Amino acid sequence: MSTGMITGAKNMLENTELNNNSNNATMQSDQTITFSDKIKKREVNEKNETLIKVKSVIPRQRQELLKWYGWGYKDSTFKLSDGKTFFTGDRYPISGKSLPHARQWVKEMFDIDLTEEPKQLQLPTSFPSSRLPNNIKEELEKISLLSTEGVDRLIRAHGQTLHDVYNLRKNSFPRIPDAVIWPTCHEEVEEIVRCASKHNFVIIPFGGGTSVSGAVTCPAKEERPIVVLDTSEMNSILWVDKDQLLANVQAGIVGQDLEREMRLRGFTVGHEPDSYEFSTLGGWVATRASGMKKNTYGNIEDLVVHTRAVTPLGVIEKSCRVPRLSCGPEWEHIVLGSEGCLGVVTEVTLKIRPLPPVVRYGSLVFPDWESGFYFEREVAKQRLQPSSIRLMDNEQFRFGHALKMEQSWGGVLLDGLKRFYITKIKGFDPLKLCVVTLLMEGTAEQVADSEKKLNSIASQHGGVPGGAKNGEIGYTLTFVIAYIRDLALDYGVVAESFETSVSWERALALCRRTKRTVREQCARRHITHYHISCRLTQTYDAGCCIYFYFGFKTVGFEDPVHVYEEIEQAARDEIIASGGSISHHHGVGKLRKKWYTNTVSEPGRRLLLAAKEALDPDNIFALGNMAFDQYSPAVKSKL
Amino acid sequence: MSTGMITGAKNMLENTELNNNSNNATMQSDQTITFSDKIKKREVNEKNETLIKVKSVIPRQRQELLKWYGWGYKDSTFKLSDGKTFFTGDRYPISGKSLPHARQWVKEMFDIDLTEEPKQLQLPTSFPSSRLPNNIKEELEKISLLSTEGVDRLIRAHGQTLHDVYNLRKNSFPRIPDAVIWPTCHEEVEEIVRCASKHNFVIIPFGGGTSVSGAVTCPAKEERPIVVLDTSEMNSILWVDKDQLLANVQAGIVGQDLEREMRLRGFTVGHEPDSYEFSTLGGWVATRASGMKKNTYGNIEDLVVHTRAVTPLGVIEKSCRVPRLSCGPEWEHIVLGSEGCLGVVTEVTLKIRPLPPVVRYGSLVFPDWESGFYFEREVAKQRLQPSSIRLMDNEQFRFGHALKMEQSWGGVLLDGLKRFYITKIKGFDPLKLCVVTLLMEGTAEQVADSEKKLNSIASQHGGVPGGAKNGEIGYTLTFVIAYIRDLALDYGVVAESFETSVSWERALALCRRTKRTVREQCARRHITHYHISCRLTQTYDAGCCIYFYFGFKTVGFEDPVHVYEEIEQAARDEIIASGGSISHHHGVGKLRKKWYTNTVSEPGRRLLLAAKEALDPDNIFALGNMAFDQYSPAVKSKL
Repeated sequence: MSTGMITGAKNMLENTELNNNSNNATMQSDQTITFSDKIKKREVNEKNETLIKVKSVIPRQRQELLKWYGWGYKDSTFKLSDGKTFFTGDRYPISGKSLPHARQWVKEMFDIDLTEEPKQLQLPTSFPSSRLPNNIKEELEKISLLSTEGVDRLIRAHGQTLHDVYNLRKNSFPRIPDAVIWPTCHEEVEEIVRCASKHNFVIIPFGGGTSVSGAVTCPAKEERPIVVLDTSEMNSILWVDKDQLLANVQAGIVGQDLEREMRLRGFTVGHEPDSYEFSTLGGWVATRASGMKKNTYGNIEDLVVHTRAVTPLGVIEKSCRVPRLSCGPEWEHIVLGSEGCLGVVTEVTLKIRPLPPVVRYGSLVFPDWESGFYFEREVAKQRLQPSSIRLMDNEQFRFGHALKMEQSWGGVLLDGLKRFYITKIKGFDPLKLCVVTLLMEGTAEQVADSEKKLNSIASQHGGVPGGAKNGEIGYTLTFVIAYIRDLALDYGVVAESFETSVSWERALALCRRTKRTVREQCARRHITHYHISCRLTQTYDAGCCIYFYFGFKTVGFEDPVHVYEEIEQAARDEIIASGGSISHHHGVGKLRKKWYTNTVSEPGRRLLLAAKEALDPDNIFALGNMAFDQYSPAVKSKL
Repeated sequence: MSTGMITGAKNMLENTELNNNSNNATMQSDQTITFSDKIKKREVNEKNETLIKVKSVIPRQRQELLKWYGWGYKDSTFKLSDGKTFFTGDRYPISGKSLPHARQWVKEMFDIDLTEEPKQLQLPTSFPSSRLPNNIKEELEKISLLSTEGVDRLIRAHGQTLHDVYNLRKNSFPRIPDAVIWPTCHEEVEEIVRCASKHNFVIIPFGGGTSVSGAVTCPAKEERPIVVLDTSEMNSILWVDKDQLLANVQAGIVGQDLEREMRLRGFTVGHEPDSYEFSTLGGWVATRASGMKKNTYGNIEDLVVHTRAVTPLGVIEKSCRVPRLSCGPEWEHIVLGSEGCLGVVTEVTLKIRPLPPVVRYGSLVFPDWESGFYFEREVAKQRLQPSSIRLMDNEQFRFGHALKMEQSWGGVLLDGLKRFYITKIKGFDPLKLCVVTLLMEGTAEQVADSEKKLNSIASQHGGVPGGAKNGEIGYTLTFVIAYIRDLALDYGVVAESFETSVSWERALALCRRTKRTVREQCARRHITHYHISCRLTQTYDAGCCIYFYFGFKTVGFEDPVHVYEEIEQAARDEIIASGGSISHHHGVGKLRKKWYTNTVSEPGRRLLLAAKEALDPDNIFALGNMAFDQYSPAVKSKL
């Protein structure tokens, strides 16, 4: 990966021009066809010109490429060898590199010696029998590919909460689905949902399985057969309209596949949640996802122009593809955030943008958290945010330092001239300083202008430039952080992140008080070795998103996950008392149900039940998220 | 009003610093209070520091200042004198000025001689009796100020549709409300709604009465007593937080009052729908309003951070005031667009921005509509829109020319050097050319940069600069256009505007075909004198908003409004067949119910009924908009 100024993938474009002139031709057309006619026309008559069949990086047998027991690629994992720590594979900047500082950091933070190799985890070989009756199985097999294999069911029984992963590792999953079905298009989803209504079985829509809210976790006490509707075969790009800067895409497409296909054509969607290597477009819609570059490309609700969703009552969608309309309440905002409980998102029309000619990373170092915070606040006030601008606290900075490679990046900051400048000349305290990472995109002129303005505001808040290299490292490190939990669990440390949104005025106090609560909760339980840190990841006119990382050494606890959850609950109570939200972008799921009604008010809860009763009266989508009881076969009695 | 570069109202700020330090102080506070506590605290304990009691321009006896029979101020109207046309008063740029070109334009367009003074309209003196029972009246009088006076009820029986105004002028309103009540705060609204539920009477929330969808028009066949809840006494600013750039405002505040108060303090809301002199914040929320400067300040959904609404089921609001959250479906988007049918919006927290240091108008002239359109499309593609950028077609340009003042503006464009340049040197055809008006805001550097880029793109599309003066005239003329209908009606011309949103690729064809449909409809009815024109008023990534103006001479028609509505319906059918929406920002109301279900899909309609059933099962808010039957006392049977 190149550093500093990177020229966009413009030359890629020249080799990959697609024949989609048909889209541009409609600009002048006088023919009367409706939007849905148009989709049909494109799909049916102009399939070869516009339909892009995407080969996903992720195979149907997910376990061939991905870890069955944790996060990400099988080939990418922290390892010990000759007393040194490595990150394996070749997918990330730190892949294949020795990490000489990691061991000491782990020793200091958790009092754990990374000397012994952890024991290898074995994929279970026996599974609960499928409860799907044969007649339903046969009916479903006529619609789409179906599997009742144990492995297929197990790896789609869960998301990526600590609870999920812990259950997986202990081979103690309380309930797994009875079958997995892979529809290839909207119409097959309609048939599957009709079949479920007819036979009264449960459907769980499954995208990338990266949920950290428990939203996709198989409901433990459901007595009806459960079929996971895996959207991964619905991953075609139905059309790309380069002139209108729109793409109509099947909702099962994986983030990295979508982005790769767009980049090959000279465009970008620009939606980059931390999970985007594995999560899907439909999942983004269902959870109201946010991406790291939302300042330029928007959050998912800003990117979406049109959605189609299949509910037991029928298909919910607008009849026109317009940029904005006033037609009563906006039902698309019900699909956005439905968390799988109302139906399946099948197709999404979303905005694309030309690849920026220049992409530049940057970093800024501040003497302390408050200085960095007020810098971020001022940048937001002036609406000068570049694509990404994030502030790490000192604990996160030091954690990043622990992942420093031998003779390489990360340490640049505390090495050589810059180290001298920051800690000596400026007198920054290494135990207090904080780092802002920047990602700027645009023309050379725009990027230079942005950098100049940001540096100027930074200097007013005591900040100094920390170099492009550190900015890039900080940005890309995000994708590796999720891998650390598996290493942690290997050595008896449970860890998880949780996030919130908060108004500017309350953000500093919220961070202070949430950390204090975690420390108090640890002290009360005689937990002496733990890590609590936070970062500010998104900024808005009216506030920001704060991400906390918390982990502790579990020695002496019989049920460490339960202890973790108790502490996280206390932290969330404090977050909410401090004016923070239940979630900025992870959603409610099953983990945060406790705070749902208070957040949306009782009339809000009643609206949710009313929407459910209208769209899914038989509770086919019995995921049990938000205000829904996962143990009740129907919601009628709750109204 | 100054022209060209205008310096912001920064010096105003210095004299009007408010004591709202309490807001800023919370930035560092460690005290645990929830958002609603905070509101309470501010309202109760710090009332004197933060509550801004606003004296509205518009009195409770609206008819003292406003026309009872049409649009706007009584003192502002088109008049004839000595065979010359004038616009009276001193409120607008053309006020008090002779308009020597208007008569000829009217003669040519409608074959009407503006020679005779129209007859004066007299406010009715007798009214239907109030059906409000005495016991309810007494109960309501204990809550808030109440009136059963005929005039008070008549002027709140309607909005500003052609139908409403025609009925008013003929003194043939089918049903007027039985009482008007003026609550002063959220809590009084709660009491009134409880009273309505107890006694089963109907409440119609009434803001500025500027609806052009029939949304606020008194339902003709309602048999229960109807009480108009006039929000105009709920017009205080509860707090302004200059550091957070937020204001919490009662929803009855009138646009111009809100903007004036903010400007006095150095800020702006920046929401400027054409109606903003008279329409209210609550009305903007209930209809999903759009403003002329949305490119900088956003549409109403972008401006709103928090809403409170009273429904018969209770108060719907979020418990936290955060910039963004993921907590299931977003119920605020149900309040936004509820069109009065689910409850009353009482308080809104919305963003404010510092007044821009520089405001500059501009205009560009293009040889034809298509050139102007592709210019607009390119500007949107590059996301370079200034605060406002609008394209008038040739018919609108010529209409604007007809409003040219003696020895003054408007004509500048076709006079002197510029005329020579545009029509001779560039060879522009006066019967084809189109005009773009621009409003640029920001620092001097930003505005200069914006102007440079816009001029450069314009020249690529054959456009030439038309001067700042014409830009300003074009922008401010918007507020006068609404007055013309009253003049038109005086002389037997019925006229109205209608708008839509559409994707870029379909916009040109939509405009062409909609105009053709209107012409065909006129020809079929032997209407020979009419005006049909359009403008492009808003642009987005994925499309734009188109505004049509249509009027015709009614000679020979018994029910000209019915004829108008038939033609508008045909036009709307064509708009929808061409890929346009039911409405960009006016809403559905009663006028566009025919297309509601098709737009939102049947599951969308069912969601609306379900929301109604949940929040307002007794149909207290029986306005009959969108999918609701105004003649049915309850919706239960429809589910």
